[in-house]
Amino acid sequence: MKLYFVTMNPFKEQEVTQYLQDAPVDLQVFKYPIQEILNLNLEVIARDKALKAYARLGRPCAVEHGGLSIEALQGLPGGLSKVVWDSVADKVCNFLDANESRAASAQTVIGYCDGKRVHLFKGETKGTISECSRGDYAFQWDPIFIPNGDTRTYAEMGFPEKARYSQAAKAWGEFAAYLRANQG
Amino acid sequence: MKLYFVTMNPFKEQEVTQYLQDAPVDLQVFKYPIQEILNLNLEVIARDKALKAYARLGRPCAVEHGGLSIEALQGLPGGLSKVVWDSVADKVCNFLDANESRAASAQTVIGYCDGKRVHLFKGETKGTISECSRGDYAFQWDPIFIPNGDTRTYAEMGFPEKARYSQAAKAWGEFAAYLRANQG
Repeated sequence: MKLYFVTMNPFKEQEVTQYLQDAPVDLQVFKYPIQEILNLNLEVIARDKALKAYARLGRPCAVEHGGLSIEALQGLPGGLSKVVWDSVADKVCNFLDANESRAASAQTVIGYCDGKRVHLFKGETKGTISECSRGDYAFQWDPIFIPNGDTRTYAEMGFPEKARYSQAAKAWGEFAAYLRANQG
Repeated sequence: MKLYFVTMNPFKEQEVTQYLQDAPVDLQVFKYPIQEILNLNLEVIARDKALKAYARLGRPCAVEHGGLSIEALQGLPGGLSKVVWDSVADKVCNFLDANESRAASAQTVIGYCDGKRVHLFKGETKGTISECSRGDYAFQWDPIFIPNGDTRTYAEMGFPEKARYSQAAKAWGEFAAYLRANQG
């Protein structure tokens, strides 16, 4: 089955190809800028993006939406991701007061529209916000997020190691399992 | 001429009625939840909201979108307004470091769709972010925004006085002038 992955992020192709290597699909990346809605909830956004992608393509397609929800900021930036991280980046680690929780949850939701309905697959990695920005590998919140079970930020790990904790890897793993169970 | 003002904010009706009292329109408030797009730019959002309101109503209608752009946060929260202020409120004044600019710009954009095109009317009030939250009148950023020319936050002034500085009053004033110039 041909599966279109709709994204504007050039770095995603290689990553997702790897996550879906055991899934029974022929992955095709389709570059198309989807107008996102204003919402904190990743599942609401992913569902909307999947419907818009299908409306454009008319073929089975998947979209991904990731976000970091910070407890002391009432879940912000959550699904607002790109506009917030492009603007304030690792400065966010200074937004938390000394006595506040530094707990955060990194989440990825995949929306897959098969033409009949949208299926959602979610991955979550819990962790904490570092006291200051650390590491060179700088994608959105990577320099300030420390996954539980480690002491380094995602940025200090770099990609291959980060993938062990990655919320995106979990979500794509769920999706791959669904595709294998529903093939043919 | 009957003009529909599309909003979900019950406090806006009285305020806007006052701003348009000399304009040649019969103002009707129409409650309809418009799905906002994710964008920092108030003009882009207001144009999109006006088109969606017109698509729903099919009659001349206006929408309002307000936002506070904070210089040291690269313009955030800007047009993201409601989701950000509902989540973190006056805590935003702690997001700025001691040595950073506290400059901010409060803006309101009105989008008016006459059925042929969307006209935009903008009001802006420059000011600064207070060191801490001050005042009781708590609408979004009112307790942390000090307009240039005063030492009090909007919240410390309360409505009648705040209207002297209000970016919304300026935008509706522009719109009223347009309506008077184009009546008949």
